[in-house]
Amino acid sequence: MPNKYIYLDNASVTRMDERVLEVMNPYFFESYAIPTSETGYSMGIEAREALEKSRVKIATALGANENELIFTSGSSESSNMAVKGVAMALINKKGKHIIVSAIEDFPVLNSAKALEKYGFDVTYLEVDEYGIVDPQVLKNSIRDDTILVSIQHANQEIGSLQDIKSIGEICREKGVIFHTDATHTFTKVPLDVSVLPVDLVTISAHTIHGPNGIGALYIKKGTPMMKWLDGGFQEFNKRGGLENIPGAIGFAKAVELVTNEENTKIQDMRDHLIERVLSEIPQTILNGHPLLRTPQNANITFQYVEGESVTLHLDMRGFAVSTGSACFSRSLQASHVILGIGGDPERAHGSLRITLGRFNKMGDVDAIIDALIEVVTNLRKMSPLGKT
Amino acid sequence: MPNKYIYLDNASVTRMDERVLEVMNPYFFESYAIPTSETGYSMGIEAREALEKSRVKIATALGANENELIFTSGSSESSNMAVKGVAMALINKKGKHIIVSAIEDFPVLNSAKALEKYGFDVTYLEVDEYGIVDPQVLKNSIRDDTILVSIQHANQEIGSLQDIKSIGEICREKGVIFHTDATHTFTKVPLDVSVLPVDLVTISAHTIHGPNGIGALYIKKGTPMMKWLDGGFQEFNKRGGLENIPGAIGFAKAVELVTNEENTKIQDMRDHLIERVLSEIPQTILNGHPLLRTPQNANITFQYVEGESVTLHLDMRGFAVSTGSACFSRSLQASHVILGIGGDPERAHGSLRITLGRFNKMGDVDAIIDALIEVVTNLRKMSPLGKT
Repeated sequence: MPNKYIYLDNASVTRMDERVLEVMNPYFFESYAIPTSETGYSMGIEAREALEKSRVKIATALGANENELIFTSGSSESSNMAVKGVAMALINKKGKHIIVSAIEDFPVLNSAKALEKYGFDVTYLEVDEYGIVDPQVLKNSIRDDTILVSIQHANQEIGSLQDIKSIGEICREKGVIFHTDATHTFTKVPLDVSVLPVDLVTISAHTIHGPNGIGALYIKKGTPMMKWLDGGFQEFNKRGGLENIPGAIGFAKAVELVTNEENTKIQDMRDHLIERVLSEIPQTILNGHPLLRTPQNANITFQYVEGESVTLHLDMRGFAVSTGSACFSRSLQASHVILGIGGDPERAHGSLRITLGRFNKMGDVDAIIDALIEVVTNLRKMSPLGKT
Repeated sequence: MPNKYIYLDNASVTRMDERVLEVMNPYFFESYAIPTSETGYSMGIEAREALEKSRVKIATALGANENELIFTSGSSESSNMAVKGVAMALINKKGKHIIVSAIEDFPVLNSAKALEKYGFDVTYLEVDEYGIVDPQVLKNSIRDDTILVSIQHANQEIGSLQDIKSIGEICREKGVIFHTDATHTFTKVPLDVSVLPVDLVTISAHTIHGPNGIGALYIKKGTPMMKWLDGGFQEFNKRGGLENIPGAIGFAKAVELVTNEENTKIQDMRDHLIERVLSEIPQTILNGHPLLRTPQNANITFQYVEGESVTLHLDMRGFAVSTGSACFSRSLQASHVILGIGGDPERAHGSLRITLGRFNKMGDVDAIIDALIEVVTNLRKMSPLGKT
């Protein structure tokens, strides 16, 4: 790794904030017991109180009641639980039809695919050129046997924001359960379940400088849900398994540390990045919507170059950026998201995702743009794919 | 919590070792990226190398190949995945019969129960007065449609060790997949899958002074297994979701720190505890086998008193002990384990589990025995249940 290294892949995982580890620390070494009831021992009562305080903090940030939020091991588990849990709860009841968008992240997309093996029928909803679902198209896809709609709040690669309110209203009207994966928007883009018609929300700590291995699922009271992780009575008897107390504490602190000012600062840097790249590097395409996108996300195709090569050359210069979602990191398959918005494999392979976080500075952004200009220009000179 | 507090509930969760956090630290703040392939960026390559090194260390401790070990969020997930993953992989193939012992921990027991709702037939195998499965009884329970046997290596409450070798040999002979939950034995009681006939093994970091929220499942090559957590291609495409790198690093360090000398020291303290309690407090029963038990576990019924009251009084004196498995902590139901070994609800409610760990000293053990003598004597004086 180069000595000075600037990480611009905050959608995959973020650097933990020192203040997060600080509050977790006592739960590693002092109050490390399992949560117990009031009749348990005092260390267990302390652990339980800390767990419940964390739950309240996180639930409040989402506009939820604390007994509607259960901790999981991360957003993948939350989304598996939401999609499969509802499907299995309703398997012999209302029907077997599920609707997801075609550009969902893999936990939702592949949970839906897995359900097809068990007789479920899945509609993969097309999105427009910006990655946005047309609520009317969704409405027309809902059938009498539709049990679940799962459409993300924002896309993992191109940051496009969905019209959750309209989608949720259609689902309510049709009596269909609605899950949204808010991994990339939680604390960054408002999502208040006390006013929005949403039944299930996936959130995670790893995108907001919290610890890995902890996430949560909002489950609106009354939502039918098969227990996904069997075990003991933990998490309101909705998820078995030893509670990850330090993780929950760290997650709550991470939520507390996010501010509107920070989100605005990140968005300003991101806007500057997009503006300079599009104006200073020819033949570039912004993937996703110019305005309806998460504040931290930029995704740009550099025509006539391979994203993998750009990543490698940027890495040698001390910049970490991504060629796609976290899940693509070990695959050279073309991004289903770029293909989903009408891009061809070449556009997909030439795309870079640059996501900003708390520890980035405006200087980092200018530095990577300068590096990008140099790298892309050099690669295009050698490129067999075309020329500038 | 009293100022001086001695934790003797190491089967529920252990205090983390400082040396574990120390090695995790760089993966929070320096190499925090997602693991990437060789063509990824250098921070991702570092993360991947660290993950794979951890995998090798843990796999080696189990006698496994590193590509047979996948990381999970803990032993509950590992056991859910093992039991449900095999069941769903074979649902339309060999049959729908599963055998578990009646005293399994809840992740296995309740996964089996959940499968009954989907048409699986489960045999809950009885155990003897010591909590031990008779391999001949198991053999007679195996039918042509049996697909899976899940019998724990050691019990979570009474520490009884099963004859894994004989059970595994019977399963092999009958062509049945064998899963064992080794949460309470891993690194403490030998379990070498290179010589033992076992197909799936659940292990966890939280019982060996490692971090919460990380465990693993050994999956012998070729074992049929439905993907349990859908997502990306992580973990040899057997478990989706962002890898918990700091967790894996901490788990590997925790494994490395366990020594035979420590296990012997713990066993000596435990033997001393049992010996003194049984000889100095009348009307006590050792639950579980006198010899075939994990080195850290003591489980004793104090007749004519409630375990909950003893726990409370010990807590006020600065000792944390448990009345049952972690999963019982918020329930006053009688332990299914004590009932399973032929105890009545009274014996179950009068039982205490005392489990020792790295941070306990012989002095702690003598101190808790002295406290126990006092507490039990006082409670019995007031007890309506009987007299000493």
